[in-house]
Amino acid sequence: MTTEFVNQLISQMTLEEKIDQLIQLAAPFFEGSSSNGQITGPMESLGITSQSIQNAGSVLGLAGAQEVIAVQEAHLKNNRLGIPLLMMADIVHGFRTIFPVPLAIGCSWDVELAEVSAGIAAKEAAVSGLHVTFAPMADLVRDPRWGRVMESTGEDPYLNSLFARAFVRGFQGDDLANDPHRLAACVKHFAAYGLAEGGRDYNTVDLSERQLREYYLPAYKAALDEGCEMVMTSFNTVDGIPATGNRRLMRDLLRDEWGFNGVLISDWGAVKELIAHGVAEDEKEAAYLAMQAGVDIEMMTPGYVHHLSGLVQEGRVDEQMINEAVARILTLKEKLGLFEHPMRGADPAAEKEIIFSDEHRKASRELATKSCVLLKNEGILPLKSEQRIALIGPFAGNGDILGPWSWTGSQEDAIRLDQALRDVYGDQQVCCAEGSGIDSISEDQVQEALAAAAQADVVVLALGEDSEMSGEAGCRADIRLPQAQLELIARLRPLGKPMVAVLFNGRPLDLHGVYDQVDAVLEAWFPGSEGGAAIADLLTGRSNPSGKLAMSFPYHTGQIPVYYNHFNTGRPQGAPDAQVKYVSQYLDIPNEPLLPFGYGLSYTCYSYGPPVLSSETMTARESIQITVEVTNTGLVSGEEIVQLYVRDHIGEVVRPVKELKDFRKVRLAPGERKLVAFTLTEEQLRYHHADLQYISDAGKFTVYTGSSSQDVQGAEFRLV
Amino acid sequence: MTTEFVNQLISQMTLEEKIDQLIQLAAPFFEGSSSNGQITGPMESLGITSQSIQNAGSVLGLAGAQEVIAVQEAHLKNNRLGIPLLMMADIVHGFRTIFPVPLAIGCSWDVELAEVSAGIAAKEAAVSGLHVTFAPMADLVRDPRWGRVMESTGEDPYLNSLFARAFVRGFQGDDLANDPHRLAACVKHFAAYGLAEGGRDYNTVDLSERQLREYYLPAYKAALDEGCEMVMTSFNTVDGIPATGNRRLMRDLLRDEWGFNGVLISDWGAVKELIAHGVAEDEKEAAYLAMQAGVDIEMMTPGYVHHLSGLVQEGRVDEQMINEAVARILTLKEKLGLFEHPMRGADPAAEKEIIFSDEHRKASRELATKSCVLLKNEGILPLKSEQRIALIGPFAGNGDILGPWSWTGSQEDAIRLDQALRDVYGDQQVCCAEGSGIDSISEDQVQEALAAAAQADVVVLALGEDSEMSGEAGCRADIRLPQAQLELIARLRPLGKPMVAVLFNGRPLDLHGVYDQVDAVLEAWFPGSEGGAAIADLLTGRSNPSGKLAMSFPYHTGQIPVYYNHFNTGRPQGAPDAQVKYVSQYLDIPNEPLLPFGYGLSYTCYSYGPPVLSSETMTARESIQITVEVTNTGLVSGEEIVQLYVRDHIGEVVRPVKELKDFRKVRLAPGERKLVAFTLTEEQLRYHHADLQYISDAGKFTVYTGSSSQDVQGAEFRLV
Repeated sequence: MTTEFVNQLISQMTLEEKIDQLIQLAAPFFEGSSSNGQITGPMESLGITSQSIQNAGSVLGLAGAQEVIAVQEAHLKNNRLGIPLLMMADIVHGFRTIFPVPLAIGCSWDVELAEVSAGIAAKEAAVSGLHVTFAPMADLVRDPRWGRVMESTGEDPYLNSLFARAFVRGFQGDDLANDPHRLAACVKHFAAYGLAEGGRDYNTVDLSERQLREYYLPAYKAALDEGCEMVMTSFNTVDGIPATGNRRLMRDLLRDEWGFNGVLISDWGAVKELIAHGVAEDEKEAAYLAMQAGVDIEMMTPGYVHHLSGLVQEGRVDEQMINEAVARILTLKEKLGLFEHPMRGADPAAEKEIIFSDEHRKASRELATKSCVLLKNEGILPLKSEQRIALIGPFAGNGDILGPWSWTGSQEDAIRLDQALRDVYGDQQVCCAEGSGIDSISEDQVQEALAAAAQADVVVLALGEDSEMSGEAGCRADIRLPQAQLELIARLRPLGKPMVAVLFNGRPLDLHGVYDQVDAVLEAWFPGSEGGAAIADLLTGRSNPSGKLAMSFPYHTGQIPVYYNHFNTGRPQGAPDAQVKYVSQYLDIPNEPLLPFGYGLSYTCYSYGPPVLSSETMTARESIQITVEVTNTGLVSGEEIVQLYVRDHIGEVVRPVKELKDFRKVRLAPGERKLVAFTLTEEQLRYHHADLQYISDAGKFTVYTGSSSQDVQGAEFRLV
Repeated sequence: MTTEFVNQLISQMTLEEKIDQLIQLAAPFFEGSSSNGQITGPMESLGITSQSIQNAGSVLGLAGAQEVIAVQEAHLKNNRLGIPLLMMADIVHGFRTIFPVPLAIGCSWDVELAEVSAGIAAKEAAVSGLHVTFAPMADLVRDPRWGRVMESTGEDPYLNSLFARAFVRGFQGDDLANDPHRLAACVKHFAAYGLAEGGRDYNTVDLSERQLREYYLPAYKAALDEGCEMVMTSFNTVDGIPATGNRRLMRDLLRDEWGFNGVLISDWGAVKELIAHGVAEDEKEAAYLAMQAGVDIEMMTPGYVHHLSGLVQEGRVDEQMINEAVARILTLKEKLGLFEHPMRGADPAAEKEIIFSDEHRKASRELATKSCVLLKNEGILPLKSEQRIALIGPFAGNGDILGPWSWTGSQEDAIRLDQALRDVYGDQQVCCAEGSGIDSISEDQVQEALAAAAQADVVVLALGEDSEMSGEAGCRADIRLPQAQLELIARLRPLGKPMVAVLFNGRPLDLHGVYDQVDAVLEAWFPGSEGGAAIADLLTGRSNPSGKLAMSFPYHTGQIPVYYNHFNTGRPQGAPDAQVKYVSQYLDIPNEPLLPFGYGLSYTCYSYGPPVLSSETMTARESIQITVEVTNTGLVSGEEIVQLYVRDHIGEVVRPVKELKDFRKVRLAPGERKLVAFTLTEEQLRYHHADLQYISDAGKFTVYTGSSSQDVQGAEFRLV
């Protein structure tokens, strides 16, 4: 796979030059960066020589065409062999035009729009000089305490796989070398980062290889099947060994079994963290373990630069292993066309034209509209044009709606809800009050809110978590809304006004104190740059909500983890012959989440017929066609996400009660009826058997179709 | 291992007679039982012939010498070969003399008394005609939502192993055949039942083989090393396959690798539950899987009786496999001396003399005293002899203090707290009020409580969970005290009286609303028949609390699982070079539990010197002696549990921040000082490596000594 050019180049490099290619440093280290010279404290302590910086392979978190060009020019001047720098950064859900957070995008179930969003993010980032984005995040998530669920597309391996592929296609396009408006993608965090114990970021992960392969690995694999150029290691342990030093995971599985030959990068500082994990005695051993595991680029710690040379001299590391790492990095630079066009897409003029363009903002607004999920509506939404509205809450006029990982976005330019509602209703009809802070409330705020509400026909509450309450290291043990906001609701409730809650947040919440207190709930997540406009479209009925939850909303924190594709257990609740007491249940809450995976309302109603199968028998060669009749029985047109689940009743190992296998987005005018058709094949029924073989079992299956993971009708077939 | 006698007997049995030996049915099926003829509903639907019942191998849940003798006599009359029945039941923490629940016993750290308690339970049960007890439970537990934590001895594999051994010794004694006052023990639930997902009983278990072997298996193995005669399967899956049908777990690991040749019994109905789990299509396949896995006795479902014969005819089950199962059952009967003495210990006269004897009650009181844990004491305890006491709360005069699994105990005879305090102080000085129900509160109750408190010098609150709120299928998502009781505290608080909370419960609780509201907290668990007396001894200072928590008390439900022997992670909180934000932590609560493993106060104070090592170097042959000076610096004598932990700093896989390796109970008079000595060997430093080999690593270790898992001083050594 390595070209003659790359091999030639490597043959000219000294061992030190090769090792330096493996380091990734932040912008302040580099001449030409506006932050150059600001290397103080921990950065200085890295102890990296200016020679190494001249030979470094990549830069972290530098953006802006002019600055990138300056750094690249300075670098090429100093670099003996003229090897350009790779510019990498976290472009997760938009560059300057911020899209909804990935968990929200997951709720759109709109794979095409997700691809468009990644394409726009890539374009804006590429003209700003970036080459690689640390996305998509393909971590399966079942624990909403974990702050980083906002960066995932949810709890389902199939849906996650579709989105992982879509993001990779959107970022990378078809031809990285000849399309300077694309970025190389880096799927992360390999592997199973989403299973941090207790939902506490960076915490221990433990699971069986069976669960790993069946649920946690598929979305990473899907990204690689789509041609994703890079992989990032996760911070957690896998089978007792931190991923970044885990040879079995990285060499045996990722490289040998899956055949991944792209660049493997450590997460920030993760090589050195092998010491804190307690598997390496010092920086040298950490470097040794990471190199043995197959980590090509060490991000932000100097283990490789300080010790690889010595390890080669001692004969513990084969120089050939370093050559291979360098070859992978140089091959990526070659694929990106950097040797011919070291400035690649970086273009100050194009930046002005492309970034935050009307077209991009329109796409963001569309995706935000499709990402919102209507969780409850007791006949109050959409709002009517003549209603006087009291917009109350800490998110009424708050620009903190971009969400974590939007460092290149601007809260200043974000469309806030107050502005958007006034644009629709005029200033007279909308009265705003903060009501409370995110986490504080005063009697003055309450009085102002009560006064605003008293004059209104309807109260719109703009509530949620600020963007520091989720994202990396943003974990909460109590996933209710902050107490101040629950108090605000409780104080407004006695007025008896109709109330709508619009929620801004990065995780499924325990909605007690909200869901039961208001007449309608719209989950807006962190909706991005056009968030207010999209929400206003939905609240006023100019758009019809169509999002469906990609992650279950627990009934209570004490129910975590709760997810739709669980196993049946030997004593399921509600079975026909179940006892009252000795079944798997809690004494104090239901087993079901408050709101299940796949759930989401609309302003219209859909009625579903039963699934009709083309045959009651499937074979390895003969698939089954499933058709289901869906009718819009309401008064407005809408888009429904028709879901298809399968249950394998008897497996060699236990199988989930339902698994999402397919879905369709169907647009229906009032009264319109459509037949929605699916094809189900034997291949879709395969799973990891006792010996981890991936095959199907003959026997009984139920196929379910419906509007959520719970609201379904089923039909049986047999695989023979 | 099979005797000639047993082989002879088997050679005379028909296939049907052999299969019938494998069934276990409840008492109502058997002639001579007082409940005989009451077989209705689900029992009738088992469809077991009277012929099979005549040949059945064992009975579940029958006790009482007369009745057992009647059933055994009737059985021997009808049974062609005169094979006696095995009488089995759950004798978990006492028969008629109820001891504290096992989690409480775990907090005594008193292995000798635990053995005594099991010996007494065995004696009482044996004279009542029982032969086997379904105990000890050796499940490691980290999730207090799970109701069955009360039946475990806690979160530590070493402490659990010691207790598992002690219980086995206590139940079985040295010579089952010649000591009719002992029972065969049955360790349960194999394996890893304690890891039920979400703390919901019977729910899915998933973990790596590494965690299974390192943490979950040792206590079962310890019981077997102690000679435990039987093993019970667990309800959960292990690596995707329910334990009861898990050939790899039962045949490969338990029988082949560990060499267990005793009787393996399914848990109640667990064979048939293979259908609900989704690994068996019907009862026949369930029977097939369980037999292949090596389950000898099927409890309460008829799969073996209905289908094994057919499976043998079809050639799917080898009759030799059935012979082996029968041989194990008959061998156990032989070991118990049943062929010679089919009535064995059953003795109506001895029952009267032995059961609930003063001696037994005294032992129960002693163990209860040692099981209570003083969680907080702001100078208020012990109570003074002249104080007027208001005893308030739903447990003030409640006999529901025996806890789950005390079906042969009597709440009537349990010493209640009101009675015990009145015995000490006289009726005049103790004023009682219920204050609230377990889960309800009325204004009348509050007013009565306020009135009682107003006249008192000190308020003793008797609070907790009723016995249905823990135990099997007793799981709670919210592990705070019920709201009614928190309200009772809040209503009493403004009086400003000193308040002591005495807690009766089966799990670690989230103590917010209690711990922060009262001046002292005594955790009494479910203390058993003599509970009130033991608590009164402690409250009044006639005994000095010495218990230490065997399971951490979480800070919040959202912190679960929290346990002391966790891993360090790559980004530990509080490390010298840790960042403020990007470390493993919650935004809203600490990482530490409210009260850690090993924690418990006393009425005196102990000061600890640093651990002094005999050498800074250990080798495989040369152990290290550790001495620590402990001084009673207070005014009363007491017993302190001096704990020894080890940290292995660098492992091939990640290692816990601390692991309990040893402890000593030391009695110290006021001012007395003792040197406590430990020996630490290389063997104690072994763990499961990447390839699951159980060896140690050379390198740096820290040994810690102290009064809890958090309150320790350390010293380093190297293993070379």
